[in-house]
Amino acid sequence: MEYKASITSDFWGKYQELVRTEMIPYQYRVLSDEEDVKIERERNDRSIPNEKSHAIENFRIAAGITTGSHYGWVFQDSDVYKWLEAVAYSLENHYDASLQKRADAIIDLIGEAQEDDGYLNTYFTLEAPERKFRLLAESHELYCAGHYIEAAIAYYNVTGYERAIDIAYKLADCIDRNFGDDENKIKGTDGHEEIEIALMKLYHLSQNEKYMSLAKFFLFERGKNPDFFEEQRQEYKGKPLLKGLEDFPKTYYQVHKPVSEQKTAEGHAVRLIYLCTALADYAYSANDGAAYGYCVNLWRNIVDKRMYITGGIGSTVIGESFTLDYDLPNDTMYCETCASVGLVFFAYNMLKNEWNGEYGDIMERALYNTAIAGVAVDGRHFFYVNPLEVVPEKSKKDPTKSHVKPVRPEWLGCACCPPNLARLVASLQKYIYVTDEGDVLVNLFIKSDLKLERNGKRAKVTMDTEYPQTGKVYIKISGDDGVIDRLAVRIPAWSDGYIVLIDGKEEKIKADKGIAVIENVYAGMIVEVDIAIGIKKWYANSNVSENMGKVAVSRGPFIYCMEEVDNGKNLHLLYIDRDAVPEYEVYDETFGGIGSISCKGSRLKSDEKVKPLYMISPLREYEECELRFIPYFYWANRGENEMRVWVNER
Amino acid sequence: MEYKASITSDFWGKYQELVRTEMIPYQYRVLSDEEDVKIERERNDRSIPNEKSHAIENFRIAAGITTGSHYGWVFQDSDVYKWLEAVAYSLENHYDASLQKRADAIIDLIGEAQEDDGYLNTYFTLEAPERKFRLLAESHELYCAGHYIEAAIAYYNVTGYERAIDIAYKLADCIDRNFGDDENKIKGTDGHEEIEIALMKLYHLSQNEKYMSLAKFFLFERGKNPDFFEEQRQEYKGKPLLKGLEDFPKTYYQVHKPVSEQKTAEGHAVRLIYLCTALADYAYSANDGAAYGYCVNLWRNIVDKRMYITGGIGSTVIGESFTLDYDLPNDTMYCETCASVGLVFFAYNMLKNEWNGEYGDIMERALYNTAIAGVAVDGRHFFYVNPLEVVPEKSKKDPTKSHVKPVRPEWLGCACCPPNLARLVASLQKYIYVTDEGDVLVNLFIKSDLKLERNGKRAKVTMDTEYPQTGKVYIKISGDDGVIDRLAVRIPAWSDGYIVLIDGKEEKIKADKGIAVIENVYAGMIVEVDIAIGIKKWYANSNVSENMGKVAVSRGPFIYCMEEVDNGKNLHLLYIDRDAVPEYEVYDETFGGIGSISCKGSRLKSDEKVKPLYMISPLREYEECELRFIPYFYWANRGENEMRVWVNER
Repeated sequence: MEYKASITSDFWGKYQELVRTEMIPYQYRVLSDEEDVKIERERNDRSIPNEKSHAIENFRIAAGITTGSHYGWVFQDSDVYKWLEAVAYSLENHYDASLQKRADAIIDLIGEAQEDDGYLNTYFTLEAPERKFRLLAESHELYCAGHYIEAAIAYYNVTGYERAIDIAYKLADCIDRNFGDDENKIKGTDGHEEIEIALMKLYHLSQNEKYMSLAKFFLFERGKNPDFFEEQRQEYKGKPLLKGLEDFPKTYYQVHKPVSEQKTAEGHAVRLIYLCTALADYAYSANDGAAYGYCVNLWRNIVDKRMYITGGIGSTVIGESFTLDYDLPNDTMYCETCASVGLVFFAYNMLKNEWNGEYGDIMERALYNTAIAGVAVDGRHFFYVNPLEVVPEKSKKDPTKSHVKPVRPEWLGCACCPPNLARLVASLQKYIYVTDEGDVLVNLFIKSDLKLERNGKRAKVTMDTEYPQTGKVYIKISGDDGVIDRLAVRIPAWSDGYIVLIDGKEEKIKADKGIAVIENVYAGMIVEVDIAIGIKKWYANSNVSENMGKVAVSRGPFIYCMEEVDNGKNLHLLYIDRDAVPEYEVYDETFGGIGSISCKGSRLKSDEKVKPLYMISPLREYEECELRFIPYFYWANRGENEMRVWVNER
Repeated sequence: MEYKASITSDFWGKYQELVRTEMIPYQYRVLSDEEDVKIERERNDRSIPNEKSHAIENFRIAAGITTGSHYGWVFQDSDVYKWLEAVAYSLENHYDASLQKRADAIIDLIGEAQEDDGYLNTYFTLEAPERKFRLLAESHELYCAGHYIEAAIAYYNVTGYERAIDIAYKLADCIDRNFGDDENKIKGTDGHEEIEIALMKLYHLSQNEKYMSLAKFFLFERGKNPDFFEEQRQEYKGKPLLKGLEDFPKTYYQVHKPVSEQKTAEGHAVRLIYLCTALADYAYSANDGAAYGYCVNLWRNIVDKRMYITGGIGSTVIGESFTLDYDLPNDTMYCETCASVGLVFFAYNMLKNEWNGEYGDIMERALYNTAIAGVAVDGRHFFYVNPLEVVPEKSKKDPTKSHVKPVRPEWLGCACCPPNLARLVASLQKYIYVTDEGDVLVNLFIKSDLKLERNGKRAKVTMDTEYPQTGKVYIKISGDDGVIDRLAVRIPAWSDGYIVLIDGKEEKIKADKGIAVIENVYAGMIVEVDIAIGIKKWYANSNVSENMGKVAVSRGPFIYCMEEVDNGKNLHLLYIDRDAVPEYEVYDETFGGIGSISCKGSRLKSDEKVKPLYMISPLREYEECELRFIPYFYWANRGENEMRVWVNER
């Protein structure tokens, strides 16, 4: 079944407009060094670039248009590709001829920088042509290639610009010639997964099995020879491409064992989640139940033991990595924006395999919280790291917290997140629905239209909702009968209940695994679902030592947090009353019209700073107070201040 | 007044025996590469040496006895010097001719390695003679020199071995020729304070003002030109001596401003505390009230805002540094053994300036807890870092906790702590009493004899006590009258009260600033002081966010902790009852006969690992249980396991 959705909602519509009007033009100016931007290193490490991006200039040099040297990370090219992909989706949402012209020119430039054999990577073309594919642990060559291919597919699909996809095929074929099981081919993978996702998408576009085969090769070759990277390092003559990477364990790249044997999420969170994303697509596309099982293993470990309540993943800055079960420190974690963007991708591909409401619940968790926290409401400031607890002075004076920025920088030394978020938001319509033959799943509740075509017939799903302001979702089916057989609706697990009305009449429909299925759909049918959106107080599993005695507050998919600007300094002195009933108030709207939450609480009167550091019988007095919570994604939009998600309870 | 004390106590006597019988011989074998020892890097950093020490071999090569290259840190020499200093004190406590012979030989070897102009440093002599004194931020040349001079003074005082002190004078004079305000001299300091302490000691020995002048120069030159190190770096041709040091801020070396303007303890904790130690000695010796005021500023900041309850200092691993007021994380801190050893030195020199019981209280805090936690009861395993909370799996799997070792290694890549602790313990008798003209302060309660001589008369103070098993202290004055005028006794601030008996008769003596003064002392006087030693529950100042809702347990000077071996896994699930009365039990003696503490508490029943990570209404059940606490210094002596000092309270 062919389908195409478009967003008409207020909240996400605003975000897509932000991408179109701010993020895309701003990021173009940054990538082409036109913006006078303050670039911050993502942590105290002088090996991180902090000069202007040079990303587009690298292509100009590689294309022979100007002269000079490559600057930036070895994966600097990927910033341009992700920007291009965001442009593609944005053009689909809102056509803009001048933007297409600009993007066509970038594609032409990329084409000029591509070598005759299809190889494409400005760093290696310019700085180390003799070392291509020879230090894959660090080189990001296939990672960059994957991002180009993803961008090209999106761009070609929207604009039909042939050159975009020609470059992609040429590049993919170059990789196919160089990698694989055959003799004389490289039996190894890239240190950073991504090519696998792209090759699966290229397979979907072309229906050419060779791309799925190559994706499969990369997916299952990883970890087969855990020493592959080390062997390449031994042979490689030259300086490391990335400082310190040789110190990281095999788990960092998920090469410690084959993915089939990986039961826990290990290593660099973005890498792992991209691996999962591709594997889930492969499992679905190849109808490989075993591969889906491997995905389920990793999903369960992430969701049950290694994920922050905000949908953030990666508990430590060193290696931007997972650590161990239930290790979820709130103030030193990583929770990279890209990792939560990846979690959305992974969840969607899991949904393709199995309609389980949990996949959508977690997708929402990542999307509505950590992912969009990655950008300020002005569209020009970005978080790489998304903490659950920040005291700005600690970030400044404790170098182990240098990655925990209290406000979003204008740009980052490693700029992977800003364009990654842009491409997710611009393409969000793709994640609202899932289709399977005649079945349509309403996965996200976003005001939107879905057009469907099946066996020459056409139908349309029109969803109207102010979710999550309310839980009312109005779905109208129109067009031809026989396109949609069944309509499934995700019922979030956090909801206390739901009502389904069909053509105004309540029907008892029991959700199974978080999915309510309406059978016998016909044109003209009106389905109203009212999901109870209450404020919830969450407790962490007691195995999470950091959250003992604390609660987190949510409403709908939004996790809330306290900020100093609303609650005063020293958020650690604040307690939410165990029995208090929090109230939702739209007294002061945040971006997109989302309201805040107030709740009765108390403040421990602070010990005077003249008091001793340690006391035997300190006076402990509490004052009643009103606590104010705002949606997590909105934090740090009102200046530098303290923030915390997990709040003491008494 | 001349005085000399010796320890006869059980607890500290055992520790001094451990130094003599285990630490000194073991460390000699390690430093001379004779021991087959497993050397652990103190954190995940491949630039840290982890081969055999080579420290003595470096001297043999520099002396021309063998050939080869220098190996180890640029400050590797100091390991030998601190060992030598420990030997000196140990010989004073327990003479051993064969040990002296071995130590004499080491001194001879050092003498052979010394250059004709007095310069002494095997790294620069062997590897970079043209770069002497040219990269002082990193070189540790004066740091090593200081440690040699301290060792030589101790050794000469005990053994009278002239060569030891000759080398020291020659070395100090070399430094004096090279550094100072005069034209053509270097107007700068070493990146690591230590020479200042040594020069003050050399002044005390020689009464030669030039050494105090030079100490004064270093103390007050520091920070005068905050760019001195950077200027040297610009001129220096060659690779850095220590990886990453160029990234550290000026505060790391306390050169951000002159010490007179430093109101907060900043930077590397050991460096700062050595600066303070020397400055307090200088303030006393030069009768410089302003300098004492600078010391008080830093003391107050450390003790009131930046010190762990265990007497540990240094809140972060990066730069082994202080961070900011009230930032005292329990599981990522540094709390280096050397820093607490230094805090004992600083406190003692503060006492010389002013008899204030707080100085002794903090000295005890550091000594009885973090300092001696640095060595296992076998004398052959050592902590560099002394955490207040450890979960072994987190140390292994979260690389940001790689410095938090769950058990003491046999030796460390940077071996500063083991011999530093050895020299402190072996010299502990020097910290028991403070004298000032005819006044004697009993500062530490350790069974000991103090011999005094004044104006040709002799007296003796005999202290008998089982402190801190009990608070009873029996002090007998004997010998000539007119030696001791007044006897002062420190009354710990944590004590609930005390009784003073003089010749069996209770006298009401009010302590002022924690010091009870007995006037009109005469030979034959018997002073009995009974200090109430109760178990205390401590609360941290509410500005310390990490310790909200938690208590720490102490008895006398010992801070206690819970270990998994006594309390089971998941110490974070345990709560001490708010109203429970802890009991002291010697059911299972730790080293030195110190007992454990038991207390009623409860255990939160752990959520099953099949439970969700986040729950809306989890069942929270508590089971009553008996909590067991052991003295902090003793932890990790019974295998690898969880430990925590700050315990939840309910």
